[in-house]
Amino acid sequence: MKKHYLMTPGPTPVPEEIRNEMAKPMIHHRTKEYQAIFKDATEGLKKIFKTSGDIFTFTSSGTGAMEASIVNVLSPGDKIIVVRGGKFGERFGDIAKAYGVEVIPIDVEWGDVPKPEIIKETLNKNPDVKGVYTTLCETSTATVYDIKAIGGIVRQTNALFVVDVISGLGADKFENDAWGVDIAVCGSQKGLMIPPGLAFCSVSQKAWRAVEESKLPKFYFNFKKYKKSYLETDTPFTSAITLVIGLKKAVETINAKGVDNTIAEHENMARAFREACKALGLNIFSKHPSSAVTAVNAPAGISADDIIKLLKTEFGVTFAGGQDTLKGKIFRGAHMGGIDTEHTIESIKALEQALARLGYKFKAASGIDTAKKILGG
Amino acid sequence: MKKHYLMTPGPTPVPEEIRNEMAKPMIHHRTKEYQAIFKDATEGLKKIFKTSGDIFTFTSSGTGAMEASIVNVLSPGDKIIVVRGGKFGERFGDIAKAYGVEVIPIDVEWGDVPKPEIIKETLNKNPDVKGVYTTLCETSTATVYDIKAIGGIVRQTNALFVVDVISGLGADKFENDAWGVDIAVCGSQKGLMIPPGLAFCSVSQKAWRAVEESKLPKFYFNFKKYKKSYLETDTPFTSAITLVIGLKKAVETINAKGVDNTIAEHENMARAFREACKALGLNIFSKHPSSAVTAVNAPAGISADDIIKLLKTEFGVTFAGGQDTLKGKIFRGAHMGGIDTEHTIESIKALEQALARLGYKFKAASGIDTAKKILGG
Repeated sequence: MKKHYLMTPGPTPVPEEIRNEMAKPMIHHRTKEYQAIFKDATEGLKKIFKTSGDIFTFTSSGTGAMEASIVNVLSPGDKIIVVRGGKFGERFGDIAKAYGVEVIPIDVEWGDVPKPEIIKETLNKNPDVKGVYTTLCETSTATVYDIKAIGGIVRQTNALFVVDVISGLGADKFENDAWGVDIAVCGSQKGLMIPPGLAFCSVSQKAWRAVEESKLPKFYFNFKKYKKSYLETDTPFTSAITLVIGLKKAVETINAKGVDNTIAEHENMARAFREACKALGLNIFSKHPSSAVTAVNAPAGISADDIIKLLKTEFGVTFAGGQDTLKGKIFRGAHMGGIDTEHTIESIKALEQALARLGYKFKAASGIDTAKKILGG
Repeated sequence: MKKHYLMTPGPTPVPEEIRNEMAKPMIHHRTKEYQAIFKDATEGLKKIFKTSGDIFTFTSSGTGAMEASIVNVLSPGDKIIVVRGGKFGERFGDIAKAYGVEVIPIDVEWGDVPKPEIIKETLNKNPDVKGVYTTLCETSTATVYDIKAIGGIVRQTNALFVVDVISGLGADKFENDAWGVDIAVCGSQKGLMIPPGLAFCSVSQKAWRAVEESKLPKFYFNFKKYKKSYLETDTPFTSAITLVIGLKKAVETINAKGVDNTIAEHENMARAFREACKALGLNIFSKHPSSAVTAVNAPAGISADDIIKLLKTEFGVTFAGGQDTLKGKIFRGAHMGGIDTEHTIESIKALEQALARLGYKFKAASGIDTAKKILGG
């Protein structure tokens, strides 16, 4: 059977030992055995987020945790600043509006980053703003934002700093507490290398004070219920047990290697992928490329979707396409979670073959040689 | 290794062939391959619910889908009738209150059922009621309600009929369309024999009209987003892919056997379990026992929790205990999903041994003989 390489920015490949762990016979969750697994998974996650605060685990898509980061700390009519520089930044705004929260958008050209000064100016102009919502890695454009700098600004105000780290965590540098993040929202199927189905929120002390004042309605995503349950047992509602079992194994793997070492490895794969593409004469879409995922412009005259289709059907490599206005213009390859050196090299090899098939001219093997040089392969 | 028998009313054992299916390498969800799996799973579910309407799949606990059945069809200040005869009936009321919906409770003694005439009277007294919320099988008391009769009453009014079938589906008889159910809420880890993490709502045409008028805020659980995505691809937010893959396999298994045959098998196991307990001189807690789960009163002088603990530690059989006021008074054994004849017989065998160990007197092997006679073992 031909080997398959999943290079999409979520879900990412789930290592075999984690899949096997999740395939064991089902266990009940109101048991000491499961509660120990859940506690280990949560405490392990705290090391990856670099937080000493709370982390709650929801059974939901990442979007569910994004909703949690709004409904738990805001009230109808509140104002928040939302950085919109891609599909996922826009989602925060959409959720807020659905709950009657006023959105002050900071629109950023797709592929670019929000300048910290703009955040500062907007906060100064709107001193009643309750939160600044943005992303670590905007997956749709493969762009990493300067969360540390923005956090330095927001922490001097009364506003909460809420960051979607769904794609970035474990590949792009992130420090929840040191950078002044009040709520970081994450999902399971990216850097944490388990299947989709779990989502997480870190919650700072500053965020807890906002929880006390929040009047938006909530039940399933209510932080207080998760806090109470965490102290007593595990979660207020039946969790996706098998995914939590996988999570425990995944965070153990990451923490055994060390989160900084894990990030360094993924940064290196991202650099190898980018430099290989450049060696092939391709341009990187983002002005500030993430280490979680790379977006590459399709060469003139060739549709990115044709490249993706050919790679999938003929070479067993699955890349992601562009979303919304970027459809057909970019293809995206990821570098996080279970994506390793072999994935990186094989995907570049396949990309060269696919591009040649589509009539694109480049120096043969220049991509693969570049990648191997960086990866030491 | 000693074989383990999971007899809890969710999660239930996941058959090995389903676990293996879910343990295969991860695939991406925005692909034709996955979309076909998702469509098959959904269409298969419709046969099990016995509906020709919509069924939506959420990545969440069952409680998430309960919340969906409230926020999608109601507005602030609306009134609903909630039957409260156990832990899960109460939950509908708690969610409604969290969203500013007025609850008219019909309180039923735990273990008893709501009389259809009470529903009728309450609807007559409150013609502005927007919905009647109740359960098929109230898991906490192992009691099955007469949903068909209640449906016959509610369908003559403007109120929606919303039924939590989380525990009952696939073990207790249920006919979504024929019984006039507008929204049936289900979870994955019971009769559908996959791990927890997915939840479902059926949605009738009458419910869709209420959706158009609903003003409660929602985003993650918004039916309209799921409808639009279902027509185009799969789900609006990344699903728990591995669980959907398991779901497809599980519904195929159930539909290959036929849903009526599946239910008949579980009814038979439930009867064998009940009659075996009676032969041991034990009393069944519920006045209208479900076929999904049985609650058994602990004999005088013995704590149910001691029975449960001994069964788990010494005999590898996991029963569930009583919740809230029933803690220590009952133990519960389930009959749905992956629980089969072997589970039923082995759990009765272990129960006899545990009871003997705790000093309870009964005619040796009377339980196991009764169970075998009914099950033809």
